[in-house]
Amino acid sequence: MNFPSKLIEDAVTEISRLPGIGKKTALRLALHLLKQNEAVTQALALSLTHMREQIRYCRNCHNISDQEECSICQSHRRDKTTICVVEDIRDVLAIENTNQYQGLYHVLGGVISPIQGIGPEELNCETLLNRVSQGEVSEIILALSATMEGDTTSFYLSKKLRETGVKVSTIARGIPVGGELEFTDEVTLGRSILTRINYSQE
Amino acid sequence: MNFPSKLIEDAVTEISRLPGIGKKTALRLALHLLKQNEAVTQALALSLTHMREQIRYCRNCHNISDQEECSICQSHRRDKTTICVVEDIRDVLAIENTNQYQGLYHVLGGVISPIQGIGPEELNCETLLNRVSQGEVSEIILALSATMEGDTTSFYLSKKLRETGVKVSTIARGIPVGGELEFTDEVTLGRSILTRINYSQE
Repeated sequence: MNFPSKLIEDAVTEISRLPGIGKKTALRLALHLLKQNEAVTQALALSLTHMREQIRYCRNCHNISDQEECSICQSHRRDKTTICVVEDIRDVLAIENTNQYQGLYHVLGGVISPIQGIGPEELNCETLLNRVSQGEVSEIILALSATMEGDTTSFYLSKKLRETGVKVSTIARGIPVGGELEFTDEVTLGRSILTRINYSQE
Repeated sequence: MNFPSKLIEDAVTEISRLPGIGKKTALRLALHLLKQNEAVTQALALSLTHMREQIRYCRNCHNISDQEECSICQSHRRDKTTICVVEDIRDVLAIENTNQYQGLYHVLGGVISPIQGIGPEELNCETLLNRVSQGEVSEIILALSATMEGDTTSFYLSKKLRETGVKVSTIARGIPVGGELEFTDEVTLGRSILTRINYSQE
């Protein structure tokens, strides 16, 4: 594309660096901002730089936070004996939105992926083991994606955590609520039979 | 969504003001920026504010420009007797990319849309008539969308321009190149027969 202005070309280039945004969408967004009041662009630019410069990560769970400790770790209402291990901050938000979990979190910052060159050293595994070794924790819930990488990470962590003697569990894999049996893939259906829930024991 | 940080909440709110971007995508973009180097966010924020603050519109054709006159209006290679009227700047870029047009442009800044409260006064119609009245222009090509609003605008402009005596044309409507006859809608096909091109006269 031949831009009539260097200013808009720069803006389009920068916007299209964002994931999932191509040149055409970037141009649409840039022209949208040009049509809006100048304050809209200023607010956007300011909020981005403020976020990037001032954001901090909780020293316990690596969740994003405005302070040294995130609001979940600081809260007196949370159950400090349970830690839910998740891949990234979006998963914390997703689980929080369910209102079903009252424990703490631990954000790994990714999953083990040899293809992308991510090993356990690149993740927040060490700090998780440190937290467990302090003795207050009784259960670790592994809430990682049901993918090859997620399963590898779960396997690695459960092996490491076994040495500490803490109870390790993983979130249930099965057919989603509202899902129909005939449209569920074989692996999921097979697993959901193997890990069936015994009504009489509940 | 309950955000653990006011900073990220602000950023997500501002990003999701952009068209076609919801809260979930905004959060994904914000977290992407957090994972990148600080310079990426700075470059993005800076390019946006620079664009918004410093961009100018060509005094002749209302195209975006870094100077008082855009590069197309300034160019000595362009045919100053033809003006192509388009809805917005993206259309200029689209036509420029075809390499088929050597005249000048006139950016209306929209089309007449009574539903959205956009009348001819909100568009750059007056300046178009002024340009024509200066006498140098011999043909106006209306290149507006083939929608109700586009057609209304074309009709309005052709009526206004008829008084000036300038030749007014519109871009051809017909089946797209590569399009198959049987999948073309009736209106397009009907029009393409009515406005057929006479090979013997060419």
